This record gives sequence, C-alpha cells and structure tokens, in this order.
Amino acid sequence: MNEPQLRKLLEQVRTGRTTVAAALKKLGHLPFESLDFATVDHHRSLRCGFPEVIYCPGKTTPQVLAIAGKLLARKGNLLATRAEPALYRAFKKKYPKAKYEKLARAITVRQVRARPSTHTVAIVSAGTSDLPVAEEARVTAEIMDQRTQTFYDVGVAGIHRLLAHAEALREAKVVVVVAGMEGALASVVGGLVEVPVVAVPTSVGYGASFGGLAPLLTMLNSCAAGVSVVNIDNGFAGGYIAARINRLAEG
Amino acid sequence: MNEPQLRKLLEQVRTGRTTVAAALKKLGHLPFESLDFATVDHHRSLRCGFPEVIYCPGKTTPQVLAIAGKLLARKGNLLATRAEPALYRAFKKKYPKAKYEKLARAITVRQVRARPSTHTVAIVSAGTSDLPVAEEARVTAEIMDQRTQTFYDVGVAGIHRLLAHAEALREAKVVVVVAGMEGALASVVGGLVEVPVVAVPTSVGYGASFGGLAPLLTMLNSCAAGVSVVNIDNGFAGGYIAARINRLAEG
Amino acid sequence: MNEPQLRKLLEQVRTGRTTVAAALKKLGHLPFESLDFATVDHHRSLRCGFPEVIYCPGKTTPQVLAIAGKLLARKGNLLATRAEPALYRAFKKKYPKAKYEKLARAITVRQVRARPSTHTVAIVSAGTSDLPVAEEARVTAEIMDQRTQTFYDVGVAGIHRLLAHAEALREAKVVVVVAGMEGALASVVGGLVEVPVVAVPTSVGYGASFGGLAPLLTMLNSCAAGVSVVNIDNGFAGGYIAARINRLAEG
Amino acid sequence: MNEPQLRKLLEQVRTGRTTVAAALKKLGHLPFESLDFATVDHHRSLRCGFPEVIYCPGKTTPQVLAIAGKLLARKGNLLATRAEPALYRAFKKKYPKAKYEKLARAITVRQVRARPSTHTVAIVSAGTSDLPVAEEARVTAEIMDQRTQTFYDVGVAGIHRLLAHAEALREAKVVVVVAGMEGALASVVGGLVEVPVVAVPTSVGYGASFGGLAPLLTMLNSCAAGVSVVNIDNGFAGGYIAARINRLAEG
Amino acid sequence: MNEPQLRKLLEQVRTGRTTVAAALKKLGHLPFESLDFATVDHHRSLRCGFPEVIYCPGKTTPQVLAIAGKLLARKGNLLATRAEPALYRAFKKKYPKAKYEKLARAITVRQVRARPSTHTVAIVSAGTSDLPVAEEARVTAEIMDQRTQTFYDVGVAGIHRLLAHAEALREAKVVVVVAGMEGALASVVGGLVEVPVVAVPTSVGYGASFGGLAPLLTMLNSCAAGVSVVNIDNGFAGGYIAARINRLAEG
Amino acid sequence: MNEPQLRKLLEQVRTGRTTVAAALKKLGHLPFESLDFATVDHHRSLRCGFPEVIYCPGKTTPQVLAIAGKLLARKGNLLATRAEPALYRAFKKKYPKAKYEKLARAITVRQVRARPSTHTVAIVSAGTSDLPVAEEARVTAEIMDQRTQTFYDVGVAGIHRLLAHAEALREAKVVVVVAGMEGALASVVGGLVEVPVVAVPTSVGYGASFGGLAPLLTMLNSCAAGVSVVNIDNGFAGGYIAARINRLAEG
Amino acid sequence: MNEPQLRKLLEQVRTGRTTVAAALKKLGHLPFESLDFATVDHHRSLRCGFPEVIYCPGKTTPQVLAIAGKLLARKGNLLATRAEPALYRAFKKKYPKAKYEKLARAITVRQVRARPSTHTVAIVSAGTSDLPVAEEARVTAEIMDQRTQTFYDVGVAGIHRLLAHAEALREAKVVVVVAGMEGALASVVGGLVEVPVVAVPTSVGYGASFGGLAPLLTMLNSCAAGVSVVNIDNGFAGGYIAARINRLAEG
Amino acid sequence: MNEPQLRKLLEQVRTGRTTVAAALKKLGHLPFESLDFATVDHHRSLRCGFPEVIYCPGKTTPQVLAIAGKLLARKGNLLATRAEPALYRAFKKKYPKAKYEKLARAITVRQVRARPSTHTVAIVSAGTSDLPVAEEARVTAEIMDQRTQTFYDVGVAGIHRLLAHAEALREAKVVVVVAGMEGALASVVGGLVEVPVVAVPTSVGYGASFGGLAPLLTMLNSCAAGVSVVNIDNGFAGGYIAARINRLAEG
Repeated sequence: MNEPQLRKLLEQVRTGRTTVAAALKKLGHLPFESLDFATVDHHRSLRCGFPEVIYCPGKTTPQVLAIAGKLLARKGNLLATRAEPALYRAFKKKYPKAKYEKLARAITVRQVRARPSTHTVAIVSAGTSDLPVAEEARVTAEIMDQRTQTFYDVGVAGIHRLLAHAEALREAKVVVVVAGMEGALASVVGGLVEVPVVAVPTSVGYGASFGGLAPLLTMLNSCAAGVSVVNIDNGFAGGYIAARINRLAEG
Repeated sequence: MNEPQLRKLLEQVRTGRTTVAAALKKLGHLPFESLDFATVDHHRSLRCGFPEVIYCPGKTTPQVLAIAGKLLARKGNLLATRAEPALYRAFKKKYPKAKYEKLARAITVRQVRARPSTHTVAIVSAGTSDLPVAEEARVTAEIMDQRTQTFYDVGVAGIHRLLAHAEALREAKVVVVVAGMEGALASVVGGLVEVPVVAVPTSVGYGASFGGLAPLLTMLNSCAAGVSVVNIDNGFAGGYIAARINRLAEG
Repeated sequence: MNEPQLRKLLEQVRTGRTTVAAALKKLGHLPFESLDFATVDHHRSLRCGFPEVIYCPGKTTPQVLAIAGKLLARKGNLLATRAEPALYRAFKKKYPKAKYEKLARAITVRQVRARPSTHTVAIVSAGTSDLPVAEEARVTAEIMDQRTQTFYDVGVAGIHRLLAHAEALREAKVVVVVAGMEGALASVVGGLVEVPVVAVPTSVGYGASFGGLAPLLTMLNSCAAGVSVVNIDNGFAGGYIAARINRLAEG
Repeated sequence: MNEPQLRKLLEQVRTGRTTVAAALKKLGHLPFESLDFATVDHHRSLRCGFPEVIYCPGKTTPQVLAIAGKLLARKGNLLATRAEPALYRAFKKKYPKAKYEKLARAITVRQVRARPSTHTVAIVSAGTSDLPVAEEARVTAEIMDQRTQTFYDVGVAGIHRLLAHAEALREAKVVVVVAGMEGALASVVGGLVEVPVVAVPTSVGYGASFGGLAPLLTMLNSCAAGVSVVNIDNGFAGGYIAARINRLAEG
Repeated sequence: MNEPQLRKLLEQVRTGRTTVAAALKKLGHLPFESLDFATVDHHRSLRCGFPEVIYCPGKTTPQVLAIAGKLLARKGNLLATRAEPALYRAFKKKYPKAKYEKLARAITVRQVRARPSTHTVAIVSAGTSDLPVAEEARVTAEIMDQRTQTFYDVGVAGIHRLLAHAEALREAKVVVVVAGMEGALASVVGGLVEVPVVAVPTSVGYGASFGGLAPLLTMLNSCAAGVSVVNIDNGFAGGYIAARINRLAEG
Repeated sequence: MNEPQLRKLLEQVRTGRTTVAAALKKLGHLPFESLDFATVDHHRSLRCGFPEVIYCPGKTTPQVLAIAGKLLARKGNLLATRAEPALYRAFKKKYPKAKYEKLARAITVRQVRARPSTHTVAIVSAGTSDLPVAEEARVTAEIMDQRTQTFYDVGVAGIHRLLAHAEALREAKVVVVVAGMEGALASVVGGLVEVPVVAVPTSVGYGASFGGLAPLLTMLNSCAAGVSVVNIDNGFAGGYIAARINRLAEG
Repeated sequence: MNEPQLRKLLEQVRTGRTTVAAALKKLGHLPFESLDFATVDHHRSLRCGFPEVIYCPGKTTPQVLAIAGKLLARKGNLLATRAEPALYRAFKKKYPKAKYEKLARAITVRQVRARPSTHTVAIVSAGTSDLPVAEEARVTAEIMDQRTQTFYDVGVAGIHRLLAHAEALREAKVVVVVAGMEGALASVVGGLVEVPVVAVPTSVGYGASFGGLAPLLTMLNSCAAGVSVVNIDNGFAGGYIAARINRLAEG
Repeated sequence: MNEPQLRKLLEQVRTGRTTVAAALKKLGHLPFESLDFATVDHHRSLRCGFPEVIYCPGKTTPQVLAIAGKLLARKGNLLATRAEPALYRAFKKKYPKAKYEKLARAITVRQVRARPSTHTVAIVSAGTSDLPVAEEARVTAEIMDQRTQTFYDVGVAGIHRLLAHAEALREAKVVVVVAGMEGALASVVGGLVEVPVVAVPTSVGYGASFGGLAPLLTMLNSCAAGVSVVNIDNGFAGGYIAARINRLAEG
C-alpha cells in the first residue's frame, strides 16, 4: 500500500465510504499488522503452527522454567532441546506433564494431541554414536505430530545394511539422514529415494572430522541433487524441516 | 529375502507352484532388481521422475553432446547447467529444440510438457549479482514442471523491500533464497514463512566472503529453524530440491 | 502502534477529530511508512542521507548504466565502486558529469554540493600497494561531503614515519586505517588517538596473508580497544562508516 | 629523558653550560626517550579520557589487585572485564566501592561521576544466550559515562520483534549489535538506522558456528554499509567504541 | 545378472535343466546375496577376514558389552579401541579372556589363533608422545595375525636415529609411520623403502599443529610418492590397512 | 656398523683377511652406501624398482627435456606427469618413442617391457569430470607394469551402477578410488572389498568443495577402515601406491 | 621538527630569544616530532645497514622507477623483488647499471661493493620448482654482501642426496631451507646443523598444499628446535634474515 | 666419498699406505660416522652444544624421570619444559639440584656453568598474559648460557612504552618478541632494530585469535623483513633460536 493509496483509504474512512473495521482489515494485511498487540511468540505460533522451541544451553534453569511457563500458558505443545537431566528434574517438578527423551536430551510437554500424519518422516543414521542427534530429530518431528520411522546404524561401510531397507525408505515423504565420520550416507540415500533428503552432519569422528566439518562438507557437496543440509549436530533442525515438508505432503 | 526364502522360491518355480513371472516380480522387489537390465540413467529417470542433468564444466563439447543424445533418445526433458554460450551454439546446431537461458547459463530441451504445478516455488534473491544463481534455480524448477515466482533484489539492508512482499511470499509452498555477501536474507525469510526454505549461498562478495564461505556459514547457523542449505552457487540444487518439495505439496 | 491505537486513529479520522494529513503523518512514523510509495533507493536516500552506491563487479555495463540513470534522476550524488576504465568510458559517454578516480577505481557524479564538514576524516595507509583501497575510502568520504586528510605509506616497519604525523592524526575525529601484510598499523594508530578507528584490511601480501585473512585477524584482535573492522579490501565501507561518524561529530 | 631532565638540559643550554651541539646529540636519541615523565597507564589516561581496563583472564588475583591499586590511586574509574565471582569477592574485600555486574562478569569502581551523555548508545542483542556479551558492552559504555538503551532478544527469525523498536533505535547515535548463531541481526539493523553500527559476534551456536566464526564473517560481509565489526564475544570493545562515537556526537 | 538372464535362469529351474542348488549358487554371486540371512557383522567377517571392531567413544559400557557379546558368540577375535581403563575393568569381569593394551588403550579378545604372517609390518614412530597411536596400530595388526616390528622414537630431528634402522626397515613389506609435530618422518621413510607406507598423523604438538592438521597436510603432500594417509590419531586404521597389505604380500 | 666393527673390518683389510671387494660390499649395506658414486636417480631406481618421475609443472621445457635425457640414458621407462600438449610436442621431437596419454596429460616412454602382473589394480571413478585424475592413476600403474581394470562413472548417487560391478571389483588386489564432489565413493567401495583402497580426492565440484578439501576430508574420515588417502588430484600417487601394493601381491 | 629547526631552537634558548618554558612546550610535542631531518628511507638505511627494498607487485612501472630513483640517489645498493621482465627492461633503460636475476625475478643495482663476508649463508632447496624462491634468497643475501653456497634439489624423498652434503652444510653459519610440497626438508636440515635455520615454505605442490599452507605448518611444527619460519614464497625474507644473522657471526 | 675413492682408501689400508686410524678418521667424516657407537642424545649434544630438552606433555612422570636420568648422567645441563608443579615435586625429590621456574613452567638442572655470553638476548612481550611464554624463552636462553634482558608489557596499544626502551633494545644481538592478541609488536620491534627478531605468537586473546592463529599470521606477514616466526606458545623455540644466534655473535 503506497502513500496515495493510504491517503485514499483514510479519505474514505473520513467520508464514511469505508468503515473503520474494513480499513483496519486492509491495513492488517501489512507485514507488521500485529507488531504490538500480539506477543512475539504467540505471533510465531500463529504463523508457523508450532510454538517457539527452547534451546537450553546458555540459559539458566530459572530462565528456562520462566520461558516454559509463558509458552505453556498458551496451551500448545513444548519442546526444550539439549536439556541436561538436572534441568529436566527441575522442569518435571514444576510441570509434571513433562517427559524426558533421554538419548535425545529433550524435554517435551504435550498439551494438545493432533491426528498423526498419514505420511512418514524417515530418520536414517549411520552409527551408534550418531543416535543422540538422530533421536533429537525424531522427537522434534513427533512433537510436531508427524509419524516417523527410524533406520539406525546403516552406515555405508556395509552398504547392504542400507539397501536392505531401500524399499521401506522409499515410502517416506521425506528422509532425515544423520551421519558423522565422513557423512557419505546422505549421498547414498539421496540416490535411492525421490523425495527431499535433509542431511544432518554430526561431530562424531576422529581428528580430521574437525568437529563435524568433514561430514558437513560431504553433505553440501553431495552428488545426489536432492540433499540439503543443516548445522552440525542440529537434529532439531533436521526434524523440524522434515516435519514442515511432511506436513506439505499431507496436503 | 534370505537364503531359505530364496531356496524355497526356487523350489516353487521348479515344482511349478510359482510361475517364472511371479518369481521374477518377487525378486524384482529386491533393492538391486534392475542393476543390469536398465541403463543407469533410465533407471534414475524412473526412480526420480526426472532425467539426469548434465553438469557441463569439465566436460568437452563432444562429451556433452553425446550424453545429451543418449538422454534425449528417451524422450524426456533435459537440463544442461553451467553451459557457456559457445557450448550452447554447438548444442543448438545438433538439437534445434534447445533453448538457452542466458543469465542462468543453462540449456533446456523440452520434449514433454506436463501440467504445471498448482503451487508455487518462490525464488528470492538478495542482489543483482546473485541473479545467475537465482535464475539457475528458477530454470531448474520450471523444467521440472513447477510454477515459480521470483522476488529479486530484496536484500536485508533495506528490509522494507522484502517485507513489502511478505504476503506474496507466504503463498508459496517452498522458498529458495539465494544470497551472497553475508547471506542474512535466508534467516529473515525463514522467520516470515512457515514452509521449507532452501538457502543457496553465492560467492558474490568482498574478500572475507572467502568464495561464499561467509553466507554458507550464515545460512547453516540460521536462527530460523526451517532453513536448510545447499552448496555455494548451486542454484540447480536449490531449484531441484524446491521442485521435489513442491511436488509433494501437489499431492 | 498497536491495533487499538490504530482503530482509535481511524475512528478519529472518521469523526473528523483528526485530519487525513495528521493521520498520514502519524502512520508515517511506522517502520514501514514508505514501503510502497517510495522507490527502494529513494527511501534509503531519505533515511541515510546518501543515495545507494553501485557496486559494479558482477553487473553488466548496461545494468550499471540503467541503475545509474534511475539514481541520477533523483538529483543526488552517485558513487560507483570497482569500476573498470572501460565501464567508465561508457558511463562518461552517457553521463558527461561523471568523474573517474583512477586509483580508487571509482566513478563519481556530483549533482549537489553540500558545505564540506568542519571536522576531518583521516585516512592512513601502510604501503603503496594499499593505495587503491585507501583511495576508495577517501573518495567515498568526500562524495559524502566529508573533509579528508591522507597519511599514506606510514607502515609500522618504520614507526617514526607514523609518529611524525601523530599530532596531525589526533586532530581528526575518526581515522580509517588501511593496511595489508600484517595489518599492525591499526593497533598502533589505535593506541595513538582517542577517536574511533575503522580498520580496513587489504589483500596485499605474500602467501600466508591468505588473501587478506592475516590483516583481518590482526585488526579484529587489536589490543587497542577503539578499533573496529570492515571487510577485506572494502575501502568503500571504511570511508562510509567514517563519514557517518564524522557527521555525528559535526553535530 | 623525562620532563625535569629536559628542562634541566634546556637550562644548561640557556646558561651556556651545555653547547647546542651537545644538546642536539643528547636529544638525537629521541623520539622515544622523553616518555618517562608519564607512567605508562597514566599517559593513556590523559590521552584517551579513560583509564586502562583490566582484562582479567590469564592474570592471577594478586596481579589484578595490584594493577587495580595503581589505577585507582589516580582517582579515575575502573573496569575489570571477564572477572569470575571469586575474583570479585577478593576485589570487593580490598576495594569496597567495587560493584559486580554479574551477567556481564564485570567489576566496576566508580570514583568520579561525570554528567551522563545526552545521546544514547543503543545495545541490541539477538538471543538470551548473547546477554553476557551485550551486558559487557552496556557496562563498558556506562562506566564511560554514556547513556544506554537496551533492546534484547530481538533476533531476525521474528523480524517484527525488531521492527517494533525501529523508531526507538533510530534515536540512538550509535548502535551496538550483539548476535551469535548467524549474526544476521547486524545487517538488518544496519539497514534500519543511519548512524554507525558496531557489530559484536558471539560464540553462541551449533557446530558450524565454529566458535563464532560464522557470525563474524556474516557481519564483515554485511550488505549494510554502516556496519563495522569487533572480535568474537568482545562486548567490551563494542561498548568502548560506541562510547567513543557517542562522545563525538556529544560535541 | 540382468532381467533376461534372470528370467532364463528361472526357466531353467522350472524345466529342471538347472538344479535349485546351482541356481542358488549363481544368485549367490550377486553383491547382495546374503543381505538378510547373515547378520550384518558376520557378513563383514566373511568378506573381510576380520570381525567388526568396536570403537568405544560415544558408546556406554552396557552398549559395548552387548555388542562384544554378539561378536564373541561367533568365535572370532575382537578388538575394542579407545577403551578407558574403567571400561576394561567391566569388560574383563564379563569376558575374562580379555586383555588390555594399556598404552594403546585397546581391549583384545583372542579366541582363535592363526599362524602368524611370514612378512612383517614395520611400525615407526617419531616421538614418545606418539606412542599411544603407534601402539594402537601395532595391536590392530597383531590381532589380525600379522607379525610386527616397532621402531620407536626415531624422529627426523636426529636423522641418524632413523638411518641406523634403514636396513631393518627395508625388510618389512609395509611400513606404518606415526608422527605428530610436523610429520616429516613419513616422507623420509617413504624415500628409504620401496614398499607401501601408511602414514598416521597425530595430534601431538604445539599450537600451530591445529590438532594434527599440520602433520596431516605434511603427509598428504609428501614428496615421497609411496605414502598414503589416514585420519589424525587413527592408529587403528594404520594398523588395519597395513595388515590388509601384508596379507596380500603373504600370497 | 659401529666404530669397533668398522675398525675391525679395516684391520681385516689391512691384514688381508678380508678382500677389498668384500669390504666394499659390506660397507655397501650401509644406508649411505652409494651417496656419491651413484647418481641420485639411479639410486632411487635401484631401490624402488622404478625411475624417478618428472612432475612437469613449474619446470621449463628445456629442463624437462634435460632431465628426461638423463633418465632415459639408463634404459628404464619414463613417466612425465601433468605435461601440456605443447610440451609433449617438443618431447616427441626429441624422443620419438614418447607417447601421450591425452586425458591423463602424461607422457610415457617405454624402453623395457616386463611381464604384466597377474593381479589387477582396479581404478574406480565417480564422474566424467574425474577422468583426468583417474587416467593419470591408470597410466602410472601401467607404466609400472601392472595390469589395470577401470570402472568409470559409478558415483554413489546411483549406487546400483557401482554394485553392478561389485563382483569384478572384488577380484582386484587393490582399488584406486577417484572422486570429487563429496567423495563418498571411497567409503562405499571400502565397504565392498577386502583389499586396500587408495582414495584420490579431486578438485571437481561446486564452491564448498573448496578445491577438493571436501572429498579429502570425506575420505580421511571414511568409516570403512581399509581406506587410505593421497593428495587432491594426485592420480599419480594413487596409481603409484596401488602398483606398489599390487607388486607385493604378485609375490 | 627537523634537525636544523631543532638546532635553531636550541640556539634561541642559548641566546635567550626563547625561554626554557617556551622551548619545553615546543619540544613537548615529542616523541615523534623530530623525525623529519631524516628521510624515511635514509633513516632506515642508517639504522639497518641496507636500503629499503622495492617489492614490485601492485606498483606501476613509473612508481617503481621513481622510488628507485630516490633510493639510488643515496648511493647505496638496491634490490627490487618480484620484478617482471617487462619491468626490468624499463628499469634497465633508465638505470643501465641494473642487473636482472631471471630465475629470482629480481633486479639489483650495485653502487658500492663491500668486502664479502668470511662466513657463508647456505641455501638449500628441495625441488627444481622451488628454485625461484631459493634464488630470491640467494640474490638478497648477496646484495647484502654475504657469501652464499647453494644446495639445490636435495629433497627428503632421497635423503642420501642431502646427507651427502651434510659436512659442507655444517660449515655455514646460517642455513636457509626452501621447500614446497610437505616442507620436511627444514626439519631434517635442522637436525643436522647447529646453526640457525630459516625456513621458507613455497606454494609448490598438489591441491592439499593449499597454496603453501602445508609446508608452512610443517616448518612451524618442526621437531628440530632451531628452525624459524618466514612467509610462503618469501625468499627475500629468508635471505634477508640469514644475512642479518651471518653479519652477526662476522663479528 | 664415492665408490672409487672408498675402494682406493681400502686399497691403501690393505697395502699399508694408510693406517687404520687414519682411515677410520676419514670415514668418520661421513654423515653417519657415529650412528651406532654414540647414543642418540649424546650425539645431538656433541653436535649442537646442548643436551636434548624434555618436552613434558604426553609423557608420564616415570618416563620424564627416566629420560632425565639418562641425560643427567652425561653431566650436561637439562631443561624440561611445560612441567606441571606436581611433576616438579617428583623431579626434585629424585634430582635435588633441580630448580623450578614457576611462571615458565620449566625445570632446569645446572651441572656445568659456562661463562655467560657477552652479548644479550632481548626478550620483549606484549601483555601480562604472555608472560609464561616469554619466561619460557628466557629460561631456555639462560640455561644455554646466554645473557638475557627482558622488556615486558610493552604492547603496541601504547607505543611509547616500547619506544622508551628502543635504545636498550638496540643493544641486543637478537630479540625475541612474544605477543598474543594481534601480535603487531613483532613488526614494530622489527622496524626498530637491525638484528634478527624471532617472533613467538601466543594463544592469548579473544575468539578470533583462533588459538593464536591471528598473531601467527600477523608475524608471518610482518612488513618488517627481519622477523622470523616459531610455533604458537613455543617460548622454548624462541629462546633456543635466539641462543643459537647470540652464540654466533659471540664469535
């Protein structure tokens, strides 16, 4: 809406040709409509269909509890990632509905329960040491009401382990691939399926992994064109994006 | 199918309890069913709904023409990326149907025309210098029969330029964000929409961009959780993944 | 302005208690006031006191000329950075007022002439090879109507060369330090003056400069606390920030 | 050669006890000999309007206390950064006027109180985890007698949170932007204001942040030209430079 | 085996021209013959002549014990690398045959004893601090039934220490070189012998070793052409590859 | 040989108990036996079974021709790598026996012909653009009298292409894997065979390949333990090491 | 304040035309004011015994000629490094005494000839491709009147080539080691001699040399403690430092 | 000595024209003369005038004590670097002559006392936090019988602190500069003196120091040509090289 249009609208209000309500609605389509009269997080909740997640590291327990309190008051579900057991214990005491996904180091609070998705998010991981990240992806997708299926410990050093699941994999609408070491699994999976693959590099590995740089680069350079990548060890992002994609497939 | 099962199946064939055709079909469900009796690329075509793309750099003109010939013989569409004008001229001479997307440096040959998608792939770019990469994404998505809408030159230094399009952006089912310099556009877009965002860093920028490393890291570290990333300057991957996602949304 | 306030304002317009002009002005204070009714660049021009600059690399000559045409139509001054001589010749033909700063590789067009600043932007450079970047900073500051004083070739290997100018340096309100090699000049200058120092690393140097990474890190790690840093070889940013600061000092 | 010695030499010249040639030779040992009549730190204090700050890491508690003692003897204010609580307790015991800014991990001792600045240093931060760095910037600016205003937790993933403060932000004379993750906030703020922006990257983030490298590169590559950058997690530098700039604006 | 061939084979089974056993054998040559009817690790054992190794970091003690249990049930030998003493104590309690190689931090269980190899794997290390990695290589090669000879503490700073062993070194069929610091030992050894050299960089060193990056690059750039490289500190890989090569030499 | 032994030997020569010839032979076993009386390259030829190779870049044509002349005078075979066509033409004029492997950019001169090896060096490459490096490996192995078999264009994006050759691959005694992009092929091959795998990363790829860093790290971090790695694009090293290994297998 | 001015001021004090207080105030602007009576370069010449060298890259031919003119006017010797042949031709025309060291790409002009040093600077290089850098070191040391001895093409892959020269090497008072590839030569030489070793890494090598980073790190991490390092390809620095050291040895 | 010469020598021994002793002496000049009949470390001691130093990290206390025992048996002096206090206490118990340099974390044992050097090694450091490294350099030079003079806390942010010592600095024959943060001190010192400067970067600093990478690159890129560099935090190397150089100056 440019200045002349705005001026015209105001004139119409002034002269009664447009009601205040109609003008309000028109102005409401501006990107900033709710800047002040909605709280920040509620706004995101409306927009993205999921409440803001709490990333726990660097926050004190009281800070986490306070943020959780505000979010839970809105009656949505909650996910707190990278939560240490001690934090969970304090959390559980205050919010008894909280559950702890130990391997994923995630706290979830489910206050509403949607119909689970028809389609499936597949979560594939290379080695046992990648499980915490893979589980974070799974927990994230599930708290977003997506059905998941996991294929763990199917790294490429024994390619037959993966191929044995090829058919099952192809039934998913989106695949999250979690792999450390050299991260080659993402490329191989990317060549087997025709749906989007979200690759999550992990920091698991010997020295020249450089904290996950190796699988990160591997995945970014994947010769299989359907692979996109998120941050190192960021299982949450992997699960979150997969959930967004699967929801689209749901229609 | 394990050994006893395989043995049993063969016994059934031997004794006539199973026909050869049925046995063949059962064996065909194995991951390797078509290893030899399908050519490599045809196989991929069946699997992924799109013929293999030709990445031209490092290939001679005769090599590209030969590969193109094989692919075109199967009557599908073709995309050759990073094609120099000289290569295009040789291509056009041999395959008169070829078209050249100059900015995207892409050759396309359209032999079949599907119904365009209902939903839209939005392609957003930060600056004029990012256009070749953004256009490569657009051309890729379109040859894959996806409808696109472009939002060019809406970098974050003038955030209002982007916000002016927020509503339109939110109508897309997937957004490709192409940005060099610091690549912050991906995060801002990621905060505005609730669909998957595929971020493509470009090598556009001053020295400390380090050939696109800066926007690559920016995008991988995006605080907006719906953002996944592909390789530097890889507009093809951005468009390809977006097409995969949009096709899912199509149902 | 939140929804109730907006509703109230519209009511006042409707009932005539507020004029359209007054309402328009009030709405104009919103961050988005001019999203559509001003062109992008004009908006920036209003906001920052300087028209958008054209960064030439990666743009074709026709693109540069077209953008320049739009910008010049608004009667402000223009700066086109990293312009090759050939580009300048085409530019000059179309816009005869254009001048070329050869060393800085910058085209300037001056259509308005403000009173030059009282205070001075000092521009200090380490070696002869750093001159293109230093000159880009100077040209930028000057087209922004700031007075400049240059101190060239005063690298730290002969510290007395710099110290000889210490008094003059201290009269500036802001100092731009341009240095390649090891970039130590920024720290020494930072220790000599009490005004802000904007450091610009350059890519001048032997192998382990790694394209300017060495002076960049040097400057970021400066033990002199008043030093902030911009991108490698980005003389424009150095001059631009210094001009912003000097303008503040102007009152 | 300190001041009394220099005075004495000149007296000897005046009274003929030393020849001009002999004096010339003695003075020829300059430029560095005449520094003794100011102690190192006092000298800086005179020159820059603020006593040297104590950076605590790597110093023992007795070392910090001893340095503090010398500095406080000159009756100025004192700032000790990155001070652990244990260090503060020892400090407080010896210098009871000391105060501890817990979040900023900073000790301040205020012995003189100047009239606070008219203008404001705005301090903007992206996330809760960035607070320690943002607070270090705030404490630094305030001990330098600058008025500050903070805008915390306004990261770009929810751009409306930032835009809601755009008007207030534009009233500051300088803005410090503190952000980890991808650091995109600096660019967006840089596009909203017309004053200098000092960007402070933080080490907050997932793996591919590489200890703050990601936001550092983001900020250095900012497409918003008014942004300069300091070291990772260096809130002190951010606050210090902002104070220098704001002081200039004060006139 | 392509589809017509497969169809033909099945027809032959059906008509009795081929027995089930023969068909089974033919199908067994497919890469995937045993995907399901052999457990993953057994399969590898068959294929590579050595059971899967347990890499302990990132696995809990119960996980390690469980995996070990499965592997030992197949009556092969076992190697668990990077095992802390505490893990070993739990291991020993459950599997009394286990032995601990303290310096190598490796647990071995020997259930079968093959005839040791005729030829020798030489293991050369540069300094005392490289011993853990060198020992891991030695233990790995030995549990794979290869004879080893060690040459420790023969770094290039005193080249005569190495040369004194040149003749002995030349009798090995493969040499593992373990070196931190600058890793130059690999090149010197590579110039002395005519057999393959497997270089293992270690993270031993001062700051600019960057966790082993320095010797890694050294070894990759070796001017002695017979040198190939494995990951930093990965003594296991060094020993494993050397064992593979030595086994080939065995005939 | 230590001092007393040396003294004893000399005494024996003096007293006639040892002939000069015998003494000479004994001294010849010292590592330094031939330091001066053999030319450098002849020495290497004796030691390693292959004359020194000429690495052409950075050498002038006359330098290459001169070195080649000296080497050819000894009647062995010759390999000149990275030779431009122009260099080859000059070479051919002077040494008519020279042949040019165009794709590999290698000149070979065969003056002696050994019985080719019984066993095979397999050379596997991922994509068409990797061919020059793969061919350099092949040419190197062949001039060293090893039989080779090539498996080109079998990248992991279509894993079936590789698996179709699994049986053939397993017949080789050593496998060279050449791959750019993400380099995952090495891990997959490493999981399929039980012989040593020498991985050669190539610089083929988009931006975040960083000149081959990506596949280099991938290969170093391979979860398949039999993989060792050589320098980026160093097909020569790959072929050379494979030849060394294959020769061992030959017995 | 230059020397005549200082002399004049002292005269005025002596004769009473200036008071001590006034003189003190004028001098109080030191420490840096009194530098003008020496030109920058002349000052360095006095201080370091050698005129400033001209580093040619990034300087235009006229700039080089002008600087050379000023320097030559002082009757000392001159060294211009990294001079292209075209630059030399222009140089020679203007300064006929100039000589060109082709391999070193250096122009020298000798106007004074000192007695050559008694002691020797040894210059050792690894391969033929390292010669330009080694020669730059040699030319630099010689124009500084130091005697040199070169040991070229003695890389560690054939360690005997180096050892054959060990005795000669030990007669030098300082050794410059120039090496690319993996740079191991510096460590081996460092272990052979008891004098300082100055290591110069070169950018010669395959991909993972990363433009000389590999030998740079190798040399910095040298286990031979007498090795210090200069920048990649910086033969000038190597020769210059060696000359400084050798001059000390000269007494 | 080549083969004919060796043969000739043996003939002379045989015929009595050369005595065994003379032959032995001649052969003793070979590089390998003492390979076996001297222990490794004694050899180095003879060659370099100083016993091997013990680098303690990564060695167990018993290992350190054992190595020390062997070294001390030869009656030379000893230096053990990076020794924790606990290690020192065990050391002291066994070798009561041991002294501990606390700040330098070094153990020294002095068994012989040479006449201290006439000339001086200057050791300059930038900040208090750099002291441990500077002290390691000092202790190293002193145990090698070199006279030292320290100039601590003279960083470039207050350049006058350094300049005040310029004259004293110029009396040294070699200068060790120890600096973290941005490491600019090396360049400034390099410009002030005409003797060799050995620069030691330290890991002291904020985030973008990247563990000392910043000052390392600074020093390698120093525009002052007399500066060579050792590893990060390697005060030992700095002191060792300086001692070697100073010893040369001693004549």
